[in-house]
Amino acid sequence: MEMEIKKDVYVLTGEIADLLEEGRYSEVKRRVSLLHPVDVAEIIASLDVQKQVLLFRLLKKDQAIAVFEQLDFEQQENLLHHFTDEWVAKILNQMSPDDRMELFDELPAKVVKKFLNLLEPEQRNIAASMLGYPENSAGRIMSPHVIDLKEFYTVEQALSRIRRLNPPEELAYTAYVIDAERHLLGILTLRDLILASPEERVGDIMSRDFVFVFTDDDQEKAAQIVQKYDLFSVPVVDREGRLVGAVTIDDVIDVMEAEATEDLHRLAAIVTTEDEYLRAPLGKKIKSRFLWLAILLIMGTFTSFVMQSFEGILQAAVALSFFIPMLTDTGGNVGSQSTAVVVRELALGRIEGPSLWKMIFSEALIGGILGILLGIVAVARVIFLRESLLLGLVLAISVWIIVFISNLVGVFLPVLFKKMKLDPAIAATPVITTIVDIIGVFMYLEIAQKILPL
Amino acid sequence: MEMEIKKDVYVLTGEIADLLEEGRYSEVKRRVSLLHPVDVAEIIASLDVQKQVLLFRLLKKDQAIAVFEQLDFEQQENLLHHFTDEWVAKILNQMSPDDRMELFDELPAKVVKKFLNLLEPEQRNIAASMLGYPENSAGRIMSPHVIDLKEFYTVEQALSRIRRLNPPEELAYTAYVIDAERHLLGILTLRDLILASPEERVGDIMSRDFVFVFTDDDQEKAAQIVQKYDLFSVPVVDREGRLVGAVTIDDVIDVMEAEATEDLHRLAAIVTTEDEYLRAPLGKKIKSRFLWLAILLIMGTFTSFVMQSFEGILQAAVALSFFIPMLTDTGGNVGSQSTAVVVRELALGRIEGPSLWKMIFSEALIGGILGILLGIVAVARVIFLRESLLLGLVLAISVWIIVFISNLVGVFLPVLFKKMKLDPAIAATPVITTIVDIIGVFMYLEIAQKILPL
Repeated sequence: MEMEIKKDVYVLTGEIADLLEEGRYSEVKRRVSLLHPVDVAEIIASLDVQKQVLLFRLLKKDQAIAVFEQLDFEQQENLLHHFTDEWVAKILNQMSPDDRMELFDELPAKVVKKFLNLLEPEQRNIAASMLGYPENSAGRIMSPHVIDLKEFYTVEQALSRIRRLNPPEELAYTAYVIDAERHLLGILTLRDLILASPEERVGDIMSRDFVFVFTDDDQEKAAQIVQKYDLFSVPVVDREGRLVGAVTIDDVIDVMEAEATEDLHRLAAIVTTEDEYLRAPLGKKIKSRFLWLAILLIMGTFTSFVMQSFEGILQAAVALSFFIPMLTDTGGNVGSQSTAVVVRELALGRIEGPSLWKMIFSEALIGGILGILLGIVAVARVIFLRESLLLGLVLAISVWIIVFISNLVGVFLPVLFKKMKLDPAIAATPVITTIVDIIGVFMYLEIAQKILPL
Repeated sequence: MEMEIKKDVYVLTGEIADLLEEGRYSEVKRRVSLLHPVDVAEIIASLDVQKQVLLFRLLKKDQAIAVFEQLDFEQQENLLHHFTDEWVAKILNQMSPDDRMELFDELPAKVVKKFLNLLEPEQRNIAASMLGYPENSAGRIMSPHVIDLKEFYTVEQALSRIRRLNPPEELAYTAYVIDAERHLLGILTLRDLILASPEERVGDIMSRDFVFVFTDDDQEKAAQIVQKYDLFSVPVVDREGRLVGAVTIDDVIDVMEAEATEDLHRLAAIVTTEDEYLRAPLGKKIKSRFLWLAILLIMGTFTSFVMQSFEGILQAAVALSFFIPMLTDTGGNVGSQSTAVVVRELALGRIEGPSLWKMIFSEALIGGILGILLGIVAVARVIFLRESLLLGLVLAISVWIIVFISNLVGVFLPVLFKKMKLDPAIAATPVITTIVDIIGVFMYLEIAQKILPL
């Protein structure tokens, strides 16, 4: 077989670390020049800081930029601190604007200001205008250097222009047709150009019917559009319809992954600004989790007040308390399920208008049916263990009510938050379970009080 | 501004439904021919079955295929039932192989067999060999009709071949260089071809250093590679290194989204075969949730046994029971957080080797610190409400132990499942919380028994 299986990155990292220790720099240079920037970035991430800087200086300039763009923010920041301003300027000026913006997004404003001043005028303008767009907007993650053509170009002239512009891979396959004021008129792909005759006019081949996003549209919207229409990129225009850049599919994939991770974290009540939880420093991790845990702990004490108000009945029939964890667990499980589904569907933009009420009605029905089924399971258990049948009745009714209510709470809360323009995932699983516990414990003890002869 | 904002799909759907009712078919034809297949698919999805079939028959053949490929599996199956075998054969033969495989993946074997027989020999061979690959493998989601070139081609000859092959968008930008036995030798992109001179040889331009996947590799691996290296597609080879197709980025995005949704659902103990929970029929939805809920309900009864064994102390100090929901909630919340993070990182392939132990150690430390902080919150609350200080001590110690243990359980369980070659997301949040409750309740009452004078 002609192909070589890639050497394990750990093995490589170890070898390169050793070579650096021994000072065998030309050997390091030789090996590293054969590697893909992504793999070099992985190696750097596993080395200690001094070796990181050493290795980075040994890279050829082009490769150095490409590698730098692949590093995590923490590593980028680290390396920049160890470089001279001259080096920093070189790197920053040659980074692609979208990757540079990712870096700037994470740095404190003071540092960003300093870095902006290290940029050449043209790059500074680009960076400054991108910084002008809202956080997490299409304008912040777009690539400004798109291929732009005029309607009257022939296919041959268009291809010439593309060669002259020498675009990077992610921008090479879609060309945007603009007028003299940069208004976006149409789109064509490199495939369209290849398959056409050299004398055809761009204006005749291009597609005038296209999707686009505004600079201040949310990055998630750009991602949804790219995914829905199977595009390689989506054009970004300002409010006058002028082309300013495009969000490319590689950035879309990163956005999708980050948003999915964030949703998952939020659903568990973890507050993260970045999805790299594992790589965050210890203090940050604790901060991202403690807040909600503390709030929920305090909220959880409401259940103790509820139970305190039923002290009499609990004293009289201590066995009642035995089943409380089981009931609160069930309520929480049901609530987690429905909230997980709804938060995800809202994030994917799949619940709108009439389908919303359909869903709520459907979930109410499901809650009712699940409640009956689980109530039967609870009663079956009571019978199986030959416990009091009245208690079994209390349990069955409580299970039914708790399941029905928690299912609806799990569905309603994210939707409510969304309507209030909040992030639906704040209706995190722990929040749902805590609310459901308070309601559930109350209903259970009320029912017990009504039914049991005490 | 030259661009038109897209008409709302609901409005369009309503209009087209009315036109179909009135029998104004040529108007429907006219309107629909202006729409993107994705939008036509959305409209079809919102119509009743008869109108769906009607509308579909009104589409021009090319558009019909494109629209059909965009439909959900349920809609595809529905429509196929209403068509003659001749129509079905036409559609199936002209679908792109990867979309056809998506459909076949969902159909019962009997139907797949019938459909295979409706295919022309060449299409049937393709479909049959793709069916031969494991479920959720790269071979199942790949596109077989990739651009293949020989080393000795000139750039001009290569471009000629591409024009002749007339590949669809998603396959047009990467060309695979093979030898006479179809062994994969190198890769080049359409950009490379455009930027090169017409007389250069493919073998001199191509990149011999490339990533690839085997036909039986998991589809998630293909997705991770495409994302990691910012590719538009990744080649799929058999075990002899022969090129059989490529997984394209549009399918990668769908895989990523489906896997993320599935992870989120699994984390909430919902068993889904497909991520379209909301569109599944009622019975399916209940089935996907009831199993785990029932299992967890039964598991939850262990807590009642634990509490029963401490009946004496609970009878003597009923107030102890007031805090049980709060404690179990906290344990569950902590466990959900750590399991959410670990399951996600495992899914993204970001935890391996040494970083695993680093993470476990780090989480042990975090659990300890969070436990102390939350213990303080618990004590503060006790002091604030002027309750028994001894009880406060019991609570603080219990909180600490519960937080520490649940954090580790939330981290260990997914990792353990992964080592046992199970899906880590089976360590769903509800499973974690139930396990943690049993441990937590036991520890709490043990500590209370030791410390309180009863």
